Amino acid sequence: KKIVVIPGDGIGQEITDSAVAVLKKVSDKYNLNLEFESHPAGGTAYDLCGTPLPQTTLEAAQNADAVLFGAVGGPKWDNVEPTLRPEKAVLGLRKGLGLYANLRPIKVADALVEYSPLKEEIVKGTDVLIVRELIGGIYFGDKCESEIYEGNERAWDLENYSVPEVNRIVEFAMQAAKKRKNKVTSVDKSNVLATSRLWRRTTAKVAEKYPEITLENLYVDNCAMQLTINPSQFDVIVTGNLFGDILSDEAAVLSGSIGMLPSASIGESTSLYEPIHGSAPDIAGKGIANPLATILSAAMLLRYSLDEQEAATCIEQAVDKALAQGYRTPDLYKEGFIKADTKTMTEAVL
Amino acid sequence: KKIVVIPGDGIGQEITDSAVAVLKKVSDKYNLNLEFESHPAGGTAYDLCGTPLPQTTLEAAQNADAVLFGAVGGPKWDNVEPTLRPEKAVLGLRKGLGLYANLRPIKVADALVEYSPLKEEIVKGTDVLIVRELIGGIYFGDKCESEIYEGNERAWDLENYSVPEVNRIVEFAMQAAKKRKNKVTSVDKSNVLATSRLWRRTTAKVAEKYPEITLENLYVDNCAMQLTINPSQFDVIVTGNLFGDILSDEAAVLSGSIGMLPSASIGESTSLYEPIHGSAPDIAGKGIANPLATILSAAMLLRYSLDEQEAATCIEQAVDKALAQGYRTPDLYKEGFIKADTKTMTEAVL
Ligand SMILES: CC(C)[C@H](C(=O)O)[C@@H](O)C(=O)O
Ligand SMILES: CC(C)[C@H](C(=O)O)[C@@H](O)C(=O)O
Repeated sequence: KKIVVIPGDGIGQEITDSAVAVLKKVSDKYNLNLEFESHPAGGTAYDLCGTPLPQTTLEAAQNADAVLFGAVGGPKWDNVEPTLRPEKAVLGLRKGLGLYANLRPIKVADALVEYSPLKEEIVKGTDVLIVRELIGGIYFGDKCESEIYEGNERAWDLENYSVPEVNRIVEFAMQAAKKRKNKVTSVDKSNVLATSRLWRRTTAKVAEKYPEITLENLYVDNCAMQLTINPSQFDVIVTGNLFGDILSDEAAVLSGSIGMLPSASIGESTSLYEPIHGSAPDIAGKGIANPLATILSAAMLLRYSLDEQEAATCIEQAVDKALAQGYRTPDLYKEGFIKADTKTMTEAVL
Repeated sequence: KKIVVIPGDGIGQEITDSAVAVLKKVSDKYNLNLEFESHPAGGTAYDLCGTPLPQTTLEAAQNADAVLFGAVGGPKWDNVEPTLRPEKAVLGLRKGLGLYANLRPIKVADALVEYSPLKEEIVKGTDVLIVRELIGGIYFGDKCESEIYEGNERAWDLENYSVPEVNRIVEFAMQAAKKRKNKVTSVDKSNVLATSRLWRRTTAKVAEKYPEITLENLYVDNCAMQLTINPSQFDVIVTGNLFGDILSDEAAVLSGSIGMLPSASIGESTSLYEPIHGSAPDIAGKGIANPLATILSAAMLLRYSLDEQEAATCIEQAVDKALAQGYRTPDLYKEGFIKADTKTMTEAVL
């Protein structure tokens, strides 16, 4: 099985190194025969090849069984022209691999409740899976940077969804809910947007095939409120690309430990796994980044792309154990715990 | 001075009655000569006249010195056809009055910190003004409910901003910041949207005229995170219609007392004031709604539309005093306080 590793920029190299070490260990233990191949992307690739997503990287990813991604971006490339910015690698991989479903499980572990910005009684028990449509909507609609319209300069972007796009992502959410608590919350702004009205009526039709699933519809503004005042009400949230971008980041910080959160972006043939945090240029190269989000992303890779449930669980349990033993990287360190740098935390998991 | 009162639906009548009583009292005290005229809107207007925003209501509002609005909506009108839904009254008034700037001050009073879903050390000192563009963007762009495109049914909405629209709202935010802490955070998604890139470059140009103001740009996903993990970093937030809708609701619940939050929607000639909470059909008619958000909206009306600073401060201080005396409506009631219904709370303020 070929895993393409794309470390990217900043702490990307350090955290993917950790996750690869963990994957190698389970590969031996469970005889998975994993092979790894590293490719550049982001600012690093721009510096090397003049483009944030070299064709060789994209092709390697397309031919891989799964992709493990670090993070891209940094102030070094702030003034690079828009089409060559590090983030373009992210959008290019999404489109190039057809990564239509972004999955973000946000579970607030009892042991980590104290890190949440929310009061314990509010955040306790939160366990939500956000399913975000990732290759449609306003992200990939037609756009215009500048035109004269009715005498003034304006710019525009087209928000749009087709019925098959909505079907696909809502089906995915329904299937995911079946393995969880049988509840799907679809988020839109159907009191204002035509696209949301198509979204809502299409969702209702898909839901008819899943009588065992409770479907709830929420306006995006209401959802933004509910995530803060009562996050444990949710099971699976499904939404479009833009709302998903905003809500999944809002939800991520509820856990108080963004350095712990993995994600999966599911494609028709190849899928991509990455931590939800960024490239943290301020601590890059210092060996102190929290590798757990990337290690947990590697577990998702085993679960979703290779169907190696046992090996995935093994990694997740090793992470729980390292935390239970008191290891904490600087982002989560508090008195009474064992301060661990990236290497120490990785060894603890290994 | 003519104030048009639009109670709307649900608790709208009760809360605007309270606010009008308070306005009458300060009108006498400060010789403001306020006159009041009530008009229907929302579901109530639909039931009476077959439309959520009768022409007479809109015209009265256009000719008023200011509008005091309650709230609209309720399950009774859930199946009314989209173009006649209660919310259309809101959008119609915004467009009809040219209410381009929605202002939401969110201040977490020390005495109310305990109501916040956030931990005290995080939310303490939060005092942010959200300035949301209210009559542009994707809310009022062209839209298509259904068309066949490349063989599939799709729907679309056009997000768009022109330079003059952005100029106007950013100017407003800069002026507001001058009276506050001289910081403006402009929120966009310029790493993805062309409209956001025009927004950002236009904002930068406006900011050149305000060297005393610190301008910061944040992506909307990052802002959604920052509002939860560090809300007290903000002074004035300025953003477009859709992002403003989401972020201002997220920010509203940080205070833990949404029944306390007023808003102003500023137009070229007439402005509108309303609580940010909804029509609360579940408690309508019971006389227990919290009138403070509407009373504080009335204070904003005096401040922004009539330039009666003293009378406005008088109301705000009366509200603080009623709270300090321990009066709490059921939404905020806790042991040790005085349980107040709408009438008792209003008298306390009076
Ligand atoms: C980098 C950016 C284009 C991206 C997005 O908006 O999708 C990021 O915020 C994310 O959520 O992965
Ligand atoms: C009722 C609805 C159309 C409205 C909006 O989205 O603007 C509401 O959510 C608000 O924020 O005032």
